[in-house]
Amino acid sequence: MNQPYRPNQTGKMFFRSSSSQQNNPRRPSPRRGYFNRAPENLGEKTEHSKTPQQNCLRIIPLGGLGEVGRNMTVIEWRDYERDDRDILIIDAGVRFPEEDMPGIDLLIPNIKYLEDKTDKISGLVFTHGHFDHIGALPYMLEKLRNPMIYAAPLTRGLIIKRHEEFKHLPKLAIDEIKNGDKRKIGIFEIEFIHINHSIPDDMALLIKTPVGRIMCTSDFKFDHNPVIDKPAEIDRLKKIGQDGLLLLMSDSTGAEEPGHSISESDIQVNLENLIKNAPGRVIVGMFASAINRVQQIIAISEKHGRKVVVEGFSMKAAVEVSKVLGYIKTKKGTLISAGESNKYPDDKITILGTGGQGEENAVLMRLATHRHKQLELKKGDTIIFSSSIIPGNERTIQHLKDNLLRHGVKVYNYKMLDIHAGGHGHQDDLEYMLDLVKPKFLMPVHGQLSMLYAMKDLGLKMGLAETNIAVVENGQVVRLTQDSMTIDKKPVPSEMVMVDGLGVGDVGSVVLRDRQMLAEDGMFVVVAVVNSRTGRVQGSPDIISRGFIYLRDNKQMLSDARTIIRRVVEKTTAGEHPFNDVLVKEEIKEKLGQFLFQKTHRRPMVLPVLIAV
Amino acid sequence: MNQPYRPNQTGKMFFRSSSSQQNNPRRPSPRRGYFNRAPENLGEKTEHSKTPQQNCLRIIPLGGLGEVGRNMTVIEWRDYERDDRDILIIDAGVRFPEEDMPGIDLLIPNIKYLEDKTDKISGLVFTHGHFDHIGALPYMLEKLRNPMIYAAPLTRGLIIKRHEEFKHLPKLAIDEIKNGDKRKIGIFEIEFIHINHSIPDDMALLIKTPVGRIMCTSDFKFDHNPVIDKPAEIDRLKKIGQDGLLLLMSDSTGAEEPGHSISESDIQVNLENLIKNAPGRVIVGMFASAINRVQQIIAISEKHGRKVVVEGFSMKAAVEVSKVLGYIKTKKGTLISAGESNKYPDDKITILGTGGQGEENAVLMRLATHRHKQLELKKGDTIIFSSSIIPGNERTIQHLKDNLLRHGVKVYNYKMLDIHAGGHGHQDDLEYMLDLVKPKFLMPVHGQLSMLYAMKDLGLKMGLAETNIAVVENGQVVRLTQDSMTIDKKPVPSEMVMVDGLGVGDVGSVVLRDRQMLAEDGMFVVVAVVNSRTGRVQGSPDIISRGFIYLRDNKQMLSDARTIIRRVVEKTTAGEHPFNDVLVKEEIKEKLGQFLFQKTHRRPMVLPVLIAV
Repeated sequence: MNQPYRPNQTGKMFFRSSSSQQNNPRRPSPRRGYFNRAPENLGEKTEHSKTPQQNCLRIIPLGGLGEVGRNMTVIEWRDYERDDRDILIIDAGVRFPEEDMPGIDLLIPNIKYLEDKTDKISGLVFTHGHFDHIGALPYMLEKLRNPMIYAAPLTRGLIIKRHEEFKHLPKLAIDEIKNGDKRKIGIFEIEFIHINHSIPDDMALLIKTPVGRIMCTSDFKFDHNPVIDKPAEIDRLKKIGQDGLLLLMSDSTGAEEPGHSISESDIQVNLENLIKNAPGRVIVGMFASAINRVQQIIAISEKHGRKVVVEGFSMKAAVEVSKVLGYIKTKKGTLISAGESNKYPDDKITILGTGGQGEENAVLMRLATHRHKQLELKKGDTIIFSSSIIPGNERTIQHLKDNLLRHGVKVYNYKMLDIHAGGHGHQDDLEYMLDLVKPKFLMPVHGQLSMLYAMKDLGLKMGLAETNIAVVENGQVVRLTQDSMTIDKKPVPSEMVMVDGLGVGDVGSVVLRDRQMLAEDGMFVVVAVVNSRTGRVQGSPDIISRGFIYLRDNKQMLSDARTIIRRVVEKTTAGEHPFNDVLVKEEIKEKLGQFLFQKTHRRPMVLPVLIAV
Repeated sequence: MNQPYRPNQTGKMFFRSSSSQQNNPRRPSPRRGYFNRAPENLGEKTEHSKTPQQNCLRIIPLGGLGEVGRNMTVIEWRDYERDDRDILIIDAGVRFPEEDMPGIDLLIPNIKYLEDKTDKISGLVFTHGHFDHIGALPYMLEKLRNPMIYAAPLTRGLIIKRHEEFKHLPKLAIDEIKNGDKRKIGIFEIEFIHINHSIPDDMALLIKTPVGRIMCTSDFKFDHNPVIDKPAEIDRLKKIGQDGLLLLMSDSTGAEEPGHSISESDIQVNLENLIKNAPGRVIVGMFASAINRVQQIIAISEKHGRKVVVEGFSMKAAVEVSKVLGYIKTKKGTLISAGESNKYPDDKITILGTGGQGEENAVLMRLATHRHKQLELKKGDTIIFSSSIIPGNERTIQHLKDNLLRHGVKVYNYKMLDIHAGGHGHQDDLEYMLDLVKPKFLMPVHGQLSMLYAMKDLGLKMGLAETNIAVVENGQVVRLTQDSMTIDKKPVPSEMVMVDGLGVGDVGSVVLRDRQMLAEDGMFVVVAVVNSRTGRVQGSPDIISRGFIYLRDNKQMLSDARTIIRRVVEKTTAGEHPFNDVLVKEEIKEKLGQFLFQKTHRRPMVLPVLIAV
């Protein structure tokens, strides 16, 4: 079903010479400082010591595999003869932290592998404008040395909007592309193919490489009746299959869901019925990034004579960018401010806000907890959650829902009615894609491991051999030639990089483990002043404890703890002048830890400080 | 549709005189120390100051409303003329902590309201043996002064089994009841009515009170084809409706789910197909408390010649109790140990284990992470998650699933096949119950607020007036007479009580908030030795920081912090002898906090210690 791509026959491939940068008219001239670096080691040491290797394409996922979010993939042409390489990067997304990562703001991909190869990066291509595909750019832009970016108009608009929040960063160089465009990016030639998702301007990528053509689907679904969007380019996809595709990197997020994903227009009827029949205000909680849905709700509201209030920072930003670019169209006077909304009858108002995931400071939660400056919930309001639940947010959303209900409002969610369509194709859609593009090799991408395995099962079902499907994890290197796909034994660095406040990557496993321990049982700091001559404790040791036990109710325990400290110090220092500070601290930790555990069955972090006088 | 109960006409009610304890043959004689207390104030002060109130039934949920779990309800007959009361308690369950309660083991109901009324407690009735209904007993037994307990055989067995873990507690007094039994408990007469759930011996309670008959459904579903159980007593329920029911307290957990809940026997076929066709070992992860399911899987395994390994502490305990009481029946030789299982062919082995919620130390997680002593996963194993996901556990279960898949095993869950049936009736079942027992008043119980409101909607749909339905929250007091149901303005204490290690209720909001703060950004302890005469800092201040930033990589920040400390101390103490310790500490907190935030955008807890020398 597949004709391997033969570069010598087609003659279309652009083979990069060592001076290819000058040969590529679309490639921007090197930016200041781009080559201003020490000469670097291009080859991995292990490779040099082995027998000559075959030139190949190396596909290295740096994020998005075994997780939902943080998508980033490196496509690298490795020329072992010339000891050269050419790197294309696809997406640079963020992910939200897990419950056991307190204080962390965001998770981003690990780009250590790229840091000594930045002059080999020919471009950074964004498939679409969701944060799990664009959000990490500001945190790695400088380390990547501000590479040339390729993005469709809305994607570009959202990238630039976000970039405004990072004043210290250099200006971005973005080449705006549209459906059907082709770009030579280094040794690669990329064709951008329109496909459906929950945001306009989603692009699948067809990439010509020296070993053959590979395709990245981007996050996708097939929507034959999309809202403010066109259906995917089915004929183009079919042609790709006919011409022969070496590898498909397919979105796997929906691979565990049976059937077809529903169309945005299918939910139109339900949304419209709810909005039309609502006795008072309608408040819709949703993702700001679901631009199509935003447009849909504005259009329905206009049809039924409702003014629309757009609330929340990210919702306002998304609507602003989308309006400027024409992806959201409103009649004059439709959009009003929250303050103005009180001048209209309740049944003439729709409020569009963020917070469908129960976010603490988003519009819905502020309304639920009386923290919104202009708006107060009241009986008669209808609240629509027009989004699915991100796994892990279930309890928070339940609390939000319960808090909303206390106001006497009506709450609707996608479990009660089809008022949300996901952005990812289900099993039947994924099979359809396989059938259209007929790849020789399959690499499931985007999703938890269970989703990747489910995608593998779909590939097997569609007739691919097990050896032609690579389920890999972040950091693993897939080595592709015209007729083989193998996985390198040695992965590249892929540990999660955490963003916390201004710090990027400075919270590592040690700091995180300490936070977890502090959270579990708190801490118990002991400050003892010790006479370095006699080894005796002077005065009463200071104890500072937080998160362990309520000290005022446990005076006896504190007093016993002081006795133990004194005894341990004096026993350990006996005859030792000067005494061994480390040893004394270790003894305090152990003995005091034992005592506190025995009394409470808790293990606070015991931290002794000795002041020798 | 309802005939209010008229005690004078039926003559069946047991009215308690002031010496009713002696009149009740089933009531145990007072235990040692039972009356050995100071005389107590029976009436609330606020009541005395008002006009005489009408005698009434007070229903006070202490847990289980606005949450799933921690079920406990107080039924109190309040005789204002005699200034007396009679208290019946239903259930005493636990709930698992939320993500923002680090270190907490369990949440239990707040029984402060009962603490000065223990001699008025006539009995504690358990509806069934799940931990969210029985688990809190050990933590409140002594405070409740070891009341008489009423429980069906399996419930009793599970209560006693758990009680064995609490060696210091007194022996329990349990009256074993069975379907159809009646008991006079104080002023109340209770009839126990068999109903279906995911554990045998679940009992709905019909309670005769001086104002009329009220019914608690317990957690329930209707299962017309249950496994090792009988269908619910439909005729008995119908008769209750015919005779007139004043109030129904209905399980609401399934009130948001459309249709009927599926029968345990419906999932039999799917489970059997999976087990029959599995090429190797079958490993089932599930709740130990779903006794019916355990029996079902053992029976299927026996049918297909598989030996069964029972793994995990709680699973072993549940099987042990259920076997002794005859709720689980096995052929001789079916149950083998994990060690023995390696002697049999893989396709002759079923392993029954806990851990379907991704619990860290349960069987499935130990298998997934190579931490099980006798068993190792291998390709060919089939893993069945035969349980639903408790909200909040989604991510943990996803990690578990991904970890399992890395072993090359096959994983099935209830989303892929009907291999799990919940224990709670859905909307159609709940409506059916309303139709059977035809209550005058409805009080939704058991579940999140959204579930209680959904139950209210079902009541409205079935023709109840809105004023006859009370959606209340924990601690609110429902006041019931023959013809009215009102909610008191003043609730009783209902704040969550947290169990952490040996402490019950000693972790309050202060300790918890400290844990959350420590988890977010860690802490920064500063120890400065200050010359009390000159106000100068001696030597270099000690800094102990955890969970904030990796100190070794931030030496400059540490050095700057020391400079700030020194400057703040010396400025604040200038001319002050002796210096104001509190003021200096406040200044350090503020100035150092500002500095650290500016450098990192994090807010560690800054804790200064001053040692005056």
